[in-house]
Amino acid sequence: MMEKEQAQAIALELLGEAKTAYLGTIDKHGFPNIKAMLNLYNDGLKTFLFTTHSSSKHVKQIKRNNKGCIYFADENKFVGLMLVGTFTVSQDKELREKVWRSGFEMFYSKGVEDPDHSVIVFKAFKANIYKNLTNMSFEID
Amino acid sequence: MMEKEQAQAIALELLGEAKTAYLGTIDKHGFPNIKAMLNLYNDGLKTFLFTTHSSSKHVKQIKRNNKGCIYFADENKFVGLMLVGTFTVSQDKELREKVWRSGFEMFYSKGVEDPDHSVIVFKAFKANIYKNLTNMSFEID
Repeated sequence: MMEKEQAQAIALELLGEAKTAYLGTIDKHGFPNIKAMLNLYNDGLKTFLFTTHSSSKHVKQIKRNNKGCIYFADENKFVGLMLVGTFTVSQDKELREKVWRSGFEMFYSKGVEDPDHSVIVFKAFKANIYKNLTNMSFEID
Repeated sequence: MMEKEQAQAIALELLGEAKTAYLGTIDKHGFPNIKAMLNLYNDGLKTFLFTTHSSSKHVKQIKRNNKGCIYFADENKFVGLMLVGTFTVSQDKELREKVWRSGFEMFYSKGVEDPDHSVIVFKAFKANIYKNLTNMSFEID
């Protein structure tokens, strides 16, 4: 059985290495949807930022139903982290700069302030970590 | 723009290589949940089988709400496949044998007919494939 501090340490280590986040949203018919996104920014286990096209299907889903989760995994180490929380969409200048990376003109031709460049903000309230056949859930303050 | 046949071929190629499937379910509070599972069996793009503990959280979620999705990705090739459909849970002998692999006694000590060994059956009705910044959705017959 993992202690909360140990679970948090495993989670943060995984986040430091994970290139990909799997975002879970709810579609208009109530089905879960999953999409892989670049793991660009996190502030501990509470706040995560992702980049998206303003016109994307995910933005529409989030505006209709903000319930969400994000998932990170290391397939080789059999470690998985699920965070449950809520999504919002923002075009705040500071947030857009936080997720901007060199080469993103490939996705947003007008640069960081391209009207089609939005930020998905995820706020977690619960975590579940899986390692070595053991699960542990904990609240995120 | 991808044609449906081309999209199906990309999807089947990805499935042949993917070790991990990401399963999306809905929890009792209406939040999406994601869990990585071993990609063990598929019959084309329509039917997928996964192994699970009969007492698992996922089994409870599926019995309450059968709406689901599964996702496969190749992070290096930027290819993603989402299938939307429904989950059921089964202890059918033939299905349990289809997902059983050498070494699974680690998870189910009594073997393939361990009462704690159940099969999650996923039936897809819709696919979305992502490759080279392009999305295509198609129905699954």
